[in-house]
Amino acid sequence: MKIMSQQAFQDLWPEQYSHCFGCGRNNKLGLQIKSFWDGDETICTWTPSEIYEAGLGVLCGGIVSTLIDCHCVNTAIAALYKSEGRELGSKPFIPFAGGSINMRHMKPISIKKPVVLRAKVIELKDRKAIIACKVFSGKTECAKAEVIAIKAPEPTWIK
Amino acid sequence: MKIMSQQAFQDLWPEQYSHCFGCGRNNKLGLQIKSFWDGDETICTWTPSEIYEAGLGVLCGGIVSTLIDCHCVNTAIAALYKSEGRELGSKPFIPFAGGSINMRHMKPISIKKPVVLRAKVIELKDRKAIIACKVFSGKTECAKAEVIAIKAPEPTWIK
Repeated sequence: MKIMSQQAFQDLWPEQYSHCFGCGRNNKLGLQIKSFWDGDETICTWTPSEIYEAGLGVLCGGIVSTLIDCHCVNTAIAALYKSEGRELGSKPFIPFAGGSINMRHMKPISIKKPVVLRAKVIELKDRKAIIACKVFSGKTECAKAEVIAIKAPEPTWIK
Repeated sequence: MKIMSQQAFQDLWPEQYSHCFGCGRNNKLGLQIKSFWDGDETICTWTPSEIYEAGLGVLCGGIVSTLIDCHCVNTAIAALYKSEGRELGSKPFIPFAGGSINMRHMKPISIKKPVVLRAKVIELKDRKAIIACKVFSGKTECAKAEVIAIKAPEPTWIK
């Protein structure tokens, strides 16, 4: 209930950060994941479709890592806003990007059930965050990962 | 030239393994990557589109890990066929799946240039392979990863 009353992190970011394949609210062909605070953790519930299958009813591993990467990077941004006591999405925006991902698939994830990701901040600095994430299908933990998110300067080819 | 004369690994797998979001030849909404032998390495060249952007002209990190995961798993399958002296795709098929991925993003990857992945088998056993992969945009190495691929039994919910 508490979760439902929040706005998703991704709905609060500036327009130029709203086109990500994994989490952009304005990418109509993307996964459009939505992340929320749930106490000290963040949560994301995402419903697969057949497009994202690996085969035999199993969700594609690359899609699992996309969900993790985007949910964790969004968690890092939200956590830094929180640590600065600032309203989510207020200016200046805090752009983080995935620096590394270390993930393990433990069990196949069905495309027929919603996937739930829970992430926790392990370490938070001004320019770097370490986030741990677990992926569930029903009550079964199917994958886990550690993501390092890095504050991202604009790529040099922009402008 | 040698590469062009080969059939892609993914074009030789059985129909039920041809729908993967990352590498399935029959998934019209997927990435449809194609992997080939290039000496002792395998190579995959894939052309991004705006759908797969993270933002600001940068390729989504989750898509990079999808390319890596699928190219490495396909490399594991092809390497086991080779080690058994069998023709690629001959029966029985050798189904591998990603067991873990440990990847590092070093530089942003432009969506405006083809992405090239090169993978190498580090260790190959009957039920497990360790594959190292580098991702290039132009001549720049932008990401690298180690993938453990595991021979995959059919998930128990099938049948």
